Amino acid sequence: MTPEEFRRLGHRVVDWVADYRERVAGLPVMSRVAPGEIRAALPSSPPAAPEGFEAILGDLDRVIVPGLSHWQHPRFFGYFPSNGELSSVLGDYLSTGLGVLGLSWQSSPALTEVEEVVTDWMRQMVGLSPAWSGVISDTASSCTLVALICARERASAFSLAGAGLQGQAAPLVVYVSAQSHSSVEKAALLAGFGRENLRLIQTDGARAMDAAALARAVAADLAAGRRPCAVVATSGTTATTAFDPLEAIAAVTDGHGLWLHVDAAMAGSAMILPECRHLWAGIERADSLVFNPHKWLGAAFDCSLYYLRDPEHLVRVMSTNPSYLQSAVDDRVRNLRDWGVPLGRRFRALKLWCLIREQGVEGLQRRLRRDLDNARWLEEQVRREPGWSLLAPVALQTLCLRHEPPGLAGEALDRHTLDWAGRVNASGEAYVTPAVLDGRWMVRVSIGALLTERGHVAALWETLRREAASQA
Amino acid sequence: MTPEEFRRLGHRVVDWVADYRERVAGLPVMSRVAPGEIRAALPSSPPAAPEGFEAILGDLDRVIVPGLSHWQHPRFFGYFPSNGELSSVLGDYLSTGLGVLGLSWQSSPALTEVEEVVTDWMRQMVGLSPAWSGVISDTASSCTLVALICARERASAFSLAGAGLQGQAAPLVVYVSAQSHSSVEKAALLAGFGRENLRLIQTDGARAMDAAALARAVAADLAAGRRPCAVVATSGTTATTAFDPLEAIAAVTDGHGLWLHVDAAMAGSAMILPECRHLWAGIERADSLVFNPHKWLGAAFDCSLYYLRDPEHLVRVMSTNPSYLQSAVDDRVRNLRDWGVPLGRRFRALKLWCLIREQGVEGLQRRLRRDLDNARWLEEQVRREPGWSLLAPVALQTLCLRHEPPGLAGEALDRHTLDWAGRVNASGEAYVTPAVLDGRWMVRVSIGALLTERGHVAALWETLRREAASQA
Repeated sequence: MTPEEFRRLGHRVVDWVADYRERVAGLPVMSRVAPGEIRAALPSSPPAAPEGFEAILGDLDRVIVPGLSHWQHPRFFGYFPSNGELSSVLGDYLSTGLGVLGLSWQSSPALTEVEEVVTDWMRQMVGLSPAWSGVISDTASSCTLVALICARERASAFSLAGAGLQGQAAPLVVYVSAQSHSSVEKAALLAGFGRENLRLIQTDGARAMDAAALARAVAADLAAGRRPCAVVATSGTTATTAFDPLEAIAAVTDGHGLWLHVDAAMAGSAMILPECRHLWAGIERADSLVFNPHKWLGAAFDCSLYYLRDPEHLVRVMSTNPSYLQSAVDDRVRNLRDWGVPLGRRFRALKLWCLIREQGVEGLQRRLRRDLDNARWLEEQVRREPGWSLLAPVALQTLCLRHEPPGLAGEALDRHTLDWAGRVNASGEAYVTPAVLDGRWMVRVSIGALLTERGHVAALWETLRREAASQA
Repeated sequence: MTPEEFRRLGHRVVDWVADYRERVAGLPVMSRVAPGEIRAALPSSPPAAPEGFEAILGDLDRVIVPGLSHWQHPRFFGYFPSNGELSSVLGDYLSTGLGVLGLSWQSSPALTEVEEVVTDWMRQMVGLSPAWSGVISDTASSCTLVALICARERASAFSLAGAGLQGQAAPLVVYVSAQSHSSVEKAALLAGFGRENLRLIQTDGARAMDAAALARAVAADLAAGRRPCAVVATSGTTATTAFDPLEAIAAVTDGHGLWLHVDAAMAGSAMILPECRHLWAGIERADSLVFNPHKWLGAAFDCSLYYLRDPEHLVRVMSTNPSYLQSAVDDRVRNLRDWGVPLGRRFRALKLWCLIREQGVEGLQRRLRRDLDNARWLEEQVRREPGWSLLAPVALQTLCLRHEPPGLAGEALDRHTLDWAGRVNASGEAYVTPAVLDGRWMVRVSIGALLTERGHVAALWETLRREAASQA
C-alpha cells in the first residue's frame, strides 16, 4: 500500500473508528454470537490475489462488529474498565505508523528516552518517591512473572548462572493471598516454584491479606527448613478491590529479606488522586509493583507499568548482550531489552505521552472522581433497596452485589444469581461479571468506562432490578 | 477527546504518517542524537492542565523524529527487517480504535475466532500440515520461554503442580547451538534450568548445529544421570541465517522423547515461498515453532506466531480458571489466555488479516522474491570485488561481509571493520549491523525493508566501498 493510498484509506479508517465510538452506545454491550459463528463466516484459506481494502471494511461491519463485546460502551461494567482514550489511540497510531523498534537504545533513542520520561511522569502522578524506576510492559501477568523471577534470583544468589532452581538445597517459597489474581499463581508456577511451595495466606473480614497469618506461615516454613522468598500483595483485588495491608506485610518481608511485589494493576490508576493513596500506605517498602494505565486511566491496551527499586538486579537477571545488539554507548544508556522478557519493543510510550498531555493530570483526576462518585451513588441505591446486598466495602469504583430474595440460599441462590446476571448480559443493555465470593456467586459491577455517566449507572440499576425480579 | 475531535486530529495523524513514509528516504537512517538528548528536551514533570494535540504533533517533528533510527527507511539494512506494511498498520488502527480485549472467548468472540482463522491461513501459507495450531504473541523471546516451560513440564510430569523445578531428583537439560539467538539462552535461564544445564552444541562449517555432537551431548548427560529435556533448533540464525538440520536433530529428539522447539523468527516468512521450504525440512517433527510476521513479512510490530502440536498440553501448563473469567461456553471455545503468559490480549489478528488480504499471498511472495534477488545481486558484487569477503553462505536475504585490506588481520582488522561500519552508519546513508563471527567483527547487511529496491542496494554497496576505502 502506497502512502497516498494509506492517506485516503487511513481517513476512512479514522472515520470508521470515530463513527464506531459515536454509535457504540446503541449496540448490544455483549456479543450474542455463538461459538464458531464468526469463524464460519470467514474463508478458511488465504486469498491468493490482493483484495481491495473496501472489502475488509465491509466485513468489519458485517462480520466483526456483531462478534464483539464492546469494552468502550458506556454500559460496560464487566471485569475492570479497559479504556482506550482517543488521545491515547492517536498516540498508538503514531507508534504503529512510525514502525520503529527499541531493541537497544541505539535502534531508536527517542523510543527509550520518551519511555524513561513518561514512566517518570507517571511515578510522580501516583506519588511514588524518586527511588523507583519504571518500564512499560504488556500486561500485569508478565510483570508479576518478571518480579517473581527476580525474587527467585535474589533469594538464590543468581542460581540461573549455576544449577538454576534445580540446584536449590531447600525450596524457595512464595506467599500470596487467596484473593490475589489468577496471574499471580500462574507466575509462581511458570517461574518453577511449584504449587507445593506457594502459600495462600488467609484474608481478614475485608478480604485483605492477614499479615499475622503471613508471619506465622513464614515462621513455619523457616522452622521446616524451607526458604521464604517473596510475597505478592495486592492493592485492589479483582473480586472486591480489597487492599492488602502493605505496612504490616512489609514488617514481615523486611524482617526476613523477602521480596515484596505489589499487584496494583487496577488500583494504581486511583493513586493519581491524593485522597486514595492511604489505601496503599507502605508502598515505598515494596521491591516492585505493577500497575496498568490501560485499565481505568485510559491508555490504549497494552500498557502495563513495572516499577522497581533496583534496576541493577533486574538487568543482571534479564540481560543478554550478543555482539549484534552492542553499541558504543551501552554504558551510558538504558537498553530496555534488559528490563523484561521481550527483546523487541514498540514505541508504547507515545500513547501514554499523548494521553497525559492531551488530558492533563487534572483532566484525568476529574474523570476518575466522577467514577468514584457514580460508584458511591450506586452503593447508596443498593443499600436502600430491600432484598439487595452489598458483599464488600466499595473501596473504589467496583461494587459486589447480589439480589437475595427471601428464602433463597445456597445453590438455589447461586442459580438465581447466575440466571439474572445472564439475562442482564443477554439483554445487551449492560455487561456485568459474575464471580464467586466466599463460595457463592455474586455480581461485580465495575464502573469507569470513559463514556459512563450517572445516567448510564442509573439505567444499569434499573436493568439489574428488572432482571432480578423477572422469572427465569 | 470526543469522536469529532478524534476524526479531525486522526486525519492529521494519518496525514503525518503518510508524509513520514513518503519522506523517510530523505532522512538519515540512523539517529545522530547523543544519550540523554531527547530526555533533556522534554519536561521532567507531567502537565497539570490539558495541552492541545497540535503541540504534541509539533514535538513529534521537533524532538522525536530526530531521535529515531528509521526502520521503514529503504536503506535500513540493520538487524532484521521489521516491516510495517501500511495495510497492516491500518489493521492495527482498527484494533486500537475498537479497544476490545480477549480475556476469554466471551469477552469479544471475534477477537479469538479471527485469530484462529488467520493463524490457520498463515499455517497454510508456510506449508505446515493441519496438525499445527497457532496463537499470536508479542515476540519470539516470549514464545521460546513458553516452549521451554512446556518442555520442562512435559519432562517433569507437570512438576508445577507439585514441588516445581525444585523437586527434581536429576536435573533437566536443554540443548541449543552456539549460534542460537540470545533470547534462547535467556528463556532457558528464566525458566529456571540454570546455565549449568544448558548445553551449547557446536556448529558445522555452515554454522548449523552438528546433530552428531548433539547426540553425543545427550548420551553424555544420560550417562551422568541427568535428564535431557529440550532442544531449541534455529531456522535462520541471527548472525548468518544458518539452518540447523531438523531431520537429523529430530532423529535425536525422537529417540529420547525430547521437546523440539524451532526458532524460525526471521526465516519463517521465507516459507511462504515453496522454493525455500527445503531449508526447514523436518519441521513437521518439531513440537513447537515460532515465527515473526512482524519481521520480513510486513505485519506491524508486534506479531509473533507460536505454532504447536499439542494444545492440550499447553493449556494444562498455562491455564487459570478463576470464577470471574468463566463462561457457559468454555468447553466449546478457545480461551487464548491459556495459550501463553498474558491474560489481556489485543485484537492483533486484524493487522495480519488486513496484510494478507490487501497484499494477497502472491503479492507477499513477489516482494520476498524481489529481496532474494537483490541479495543475490549484492552477493555477486562482493564476490567480484578484490579485498572483500563473504563470510557465510547467503541462504536468504542477509549477507555477512567484510572488507579485508592486504596485511590487516586480528584486532587491527576488527578496528578497521568497526571503523568503517561506524562511518557508514554515521553517514546517515545506510544502517548496517556489525556482529562477531568466529571471534572477529564482520558486518551484517539484511536486505528486505519494504521500500528497498535494487537502486538502494546499489547505493549501499557504493557507501560500503567508499567508507571502507577512506582513512579513519
